[in-house]
Amino acid sequence: MNDPMLPDAGGLSALHPADLADRLQRLPVEEARRILHQLSEEKRADVIAELDRAEATELLAAFSSAELADVLEELPHSEAADLAGELPPGQRAAVLAELPPQDSAQVASLLRYPPDSAGGIMSDRFIALRADQTVAECQELLRQRAAEAPAEMTDDIAYLYVSDPDGRLVGVVPFRDLVFRRPHRRMGEIMRRDLKFVRALDDQEKVARLFQQYHYLALPVLEQNDRLVGIVLANQIIDILKAEVTEDMQRMVGLSGEESAWTPWRRALRGRLAWLYVNLATAFMAAAVVALFESTIARWTVLAVFLPIVAGQGGNAGAQTLTVIIRAMALGELTPADGRRALEKELTLALLNGLAVGLVVGVLGYWWKGSALLGVVVGIAMVLNMLAAALSGVLVPYGLKALRIDPALASSIFVTTVTDVAGFFFFLGLAAIGLKLFAP
Amino acid sequence: MNDPMLPDAGGLSALHPADLADRLQRLPVEEARRILHQLSEEKRADVIAELDRAEATELLAAFSSAELADVLEELPHSEAADLAGELPPGQRAAVLAELPPQDSAQVASLLRYPPDSAGGIMSDRFIALRADQTVAECQELLRQRAAEAPAEMTDDIAYLYVSDPDGRLVGVVPFRDLVFRRPHRRMGEIMRRDLKFVRALDDQEKVARLFQQYHYLALPVLEQNDRLVGIVLANQIIDILKAEVTEDMQRMVGLSGEESAWTPWRRALRGRLAWLYVNLATAFMAAAVVALFESTIARWTVLAVFLPIVAGQGGNAGAQTLTVIIRAMALGELTPADGRRALEKELTLALLNGLAVGLVVGVLGYWWKGSALLGVVVGIAMVLNMLAAALSGVLVPYGLKALRIDPALASSIFVTTVTDVAGFFFFLGLAAIGLKLFAP
Repeated sequence: MNDPMLPDAGGLSALHPADLADRLQRLPVEEARRILHQLSEEKRADVIAELDRAEATELLAAFSSAELADVLEELPHSEAADLAGELPPGQRAAVLAELPPQDSAQVASLLRYPPDSAGGIMSDRFIALRADQTVAECQELLRQRAAEAPAEMTDDIAYLYVSDPDGRLVGVVPFRDLVFRRPHRRMGEIMRRDLKFVRALDDQEKVARLFQQYHYLALPVLEQNDRLVGIVLANQIIDILKAEVTEDMQRMVGLSGEESAWTPWRRALRGRLAWLYVNLATAFMAAAVVALFESTIARWTVLAVFLPIVAGQGGNAGAQTLTVIIRAMALGELTPADGRRALEKELTLALLNGLAVGLVVGVLGYWWKGSALLGVVVGIAMVLNMLAAALSGVLVPYGLKALRIDPALASSIFVTTVTDVAGFFFFLGLAAIGLKLFAP
Repeated sequence: MNDPMLPDAGGLSALHPADLADRLQRLPVEEARRILHQLSEEKRADVIAELDRAEATELLAAFSSAELADVLEELPHSEAADLAGELPPGQRAAVLAELPPQDSAQVASLLRYPPDSAGGIMSDRFIALRADQTVAECQELLRQRAAEAPAEMTDDIAYLYVSDPDGRLVGVVPFRDLVFRRPHRRMGEIMRRDLKFVRALDDQEKVARLFQQYHYLALPVLEQNDRLVGIVLANQIIDILKAEVTEDMQRMVGLSGEESAWTPWRRALRGRLAWLYVNLATAFMAAAVVALFESTIARWTVLAVFLPIVAGQGGNAGAQTLTVIIRAMALGELTPADGRRALEKELTLALLNGLAVGLVVGVLGYWWKGSALLGVVVGIAMVLNMLAAALSGVLVPYGLKALRIDPALASSIFVTTVTDVAGFFFFLGLAAIGLKLFAP
């Protein structure tokens, strides 16, 4: 009898490929593989294209090269290249050899680009026309091409691209103009020349930023000599943004950038533990500062009570600054030259917040523990720690960026270390001085 | 003489409206307004449409209702509605009254939808046809419409929508089919019926998730009785994702969700300070736990040295769990029913990480301070605190969500509080017991 929650492949195959892929990702691998094998070749390929990359690799591990070639043949070249890129090099070559020669060459040429470059994410399903062609000629040409190779034509055609005889991109025409413009008009007359484009080796983050800035439905991808080699569609950018943002958020706290709530704990363990150890090393630095002042604490134990307050406020203020800076960097809103202005803003905020918080903590400290000295010390330490939080919240991501490291990478761990170390040093140091001066 | 960094409006007007908007946002308001006034009416409207909402409101504050109506008239209805929505109600009515009656009615009807609903973000520039119309008839109809009202036609037409006589959406046809299909084919024959859509009152996050799932270039927006009232384009979703993600990242650390690196400190101060005070209240809870054990610390000061390690590791592990959960919730990957499975994963990781970290900290503690008791106490506290971090990292966002509060809202502050309070309690409590048993 069938489990009512798991309809057989017949029932499942009525689902949209993206929905079916979601279901498969929640099933044990063997079960998912069994269902995949029951689908039609075309549907199977569609579903595989929708799977998360890690999941797809795992599911395809038991497929033969011939079976994989069948899947790849059904997919657009760009998606075939993405999948082939995940295979071990030996198997990849075997699979490519099984493909029809033209597909194989196209997929191989896409595989030359790094997966996170414009070339790595572009589709080769675009329409390029010549400037001297008329609207009527283009209509006829496209009708023929669509009849000969329907699979080459995507539903999602928003623009036509116009090249000169050397293959150089010279203009863009909205596809709708094939219907709206008079039949005798030439592409060269109706095209727009001030077009935006990306280079094949541009990073996908740069591509995403262009979409965010200009709001086109597609952008052309150029190789050397402005040769048009592909397009990126806005709907692909949604996936890329999703992945980039997840990566930024995760890396800030020392996660792999690719973990999801469904990543099995076995795969998540190593990455998380590595960063916990890094964090441990930095925590020992904060502990070492406290250890410097052990004799001060021995004389005045109440200092230990205020350590979490100093650390907590500094850490939180640092996280606020850091989040604003990392996000602005990711959105391309902060150039290196803007750093000074951002730092001024953060230091101004830190000073004012520090005074506001320091005053309250100082008064509460005095009121709770009855010591004016404690109030003054904790209040001043709070102001100084806020300034340290602002400084490190700006300088850590800028420093990582200058070193060509992802500015998000474990930045919150570093900033917390600064605020812990600086906060404890100011607080306990001032307390030690205060004790020496007023209670020798 | 002109500042070479600030070309006059003549030079600036050669820029893409989006780039010009960026420049204006970095200028003092008066200067930006002066440049806006020098632009042609059409260009001015394009630039205003590209400004950040807060910036646009500030810049337009000095415009008269008639001037604002001129701007709105140049814009697509959806963008005019967005801008009008930012005006004070009195001025909004005055501006709408200045618009041509038909535009005014359309803009007013868009204004009825909440700004973050599908209706609030949709465009009314879509093409709806009837199922009995042929390809040739549709071509002719569209050509006429484009000739009569070119401004109504966007460049970005990817799909045609097919309605029945009651205005009910029944199918979708890729626009390219107007060129590729034979002229006598009827829309009803070539349309796809299994289409995805959103409801006008659906939240924009839901809309974004549909785009992420199905990768269309546009989705239709339906009112009651499946009446087609607008479309949302993939390139708009990019902006929405950007805003939603910024909001999530910022709210996790108690920022407004709308602050950018360019927000003036005056506007940022109040929001940040409010959360620092909330954080302060929670930090005092952690301090209170330490205060409970003041006499224990007085006997054994080295405990104070290990407080930052206990707090730091717990806080970091909690942030890892929290980030994975918040992100999965935002992506729609975690339903309420998935919570149990997520919790099991996180607790498993916490136990293993806790043992791995606890062992190292325990050994280091013993080696550094020469006390086996300290090593055992700090090691066990570490394991327990990791479990507390996992529990709170999952339960805080689920709890907020159950209360219909944004799960990202200040969640990291709450989780840090739990890990601080629990960590100190376990660590100092175990130390107190240990002292009583082994060094009475």
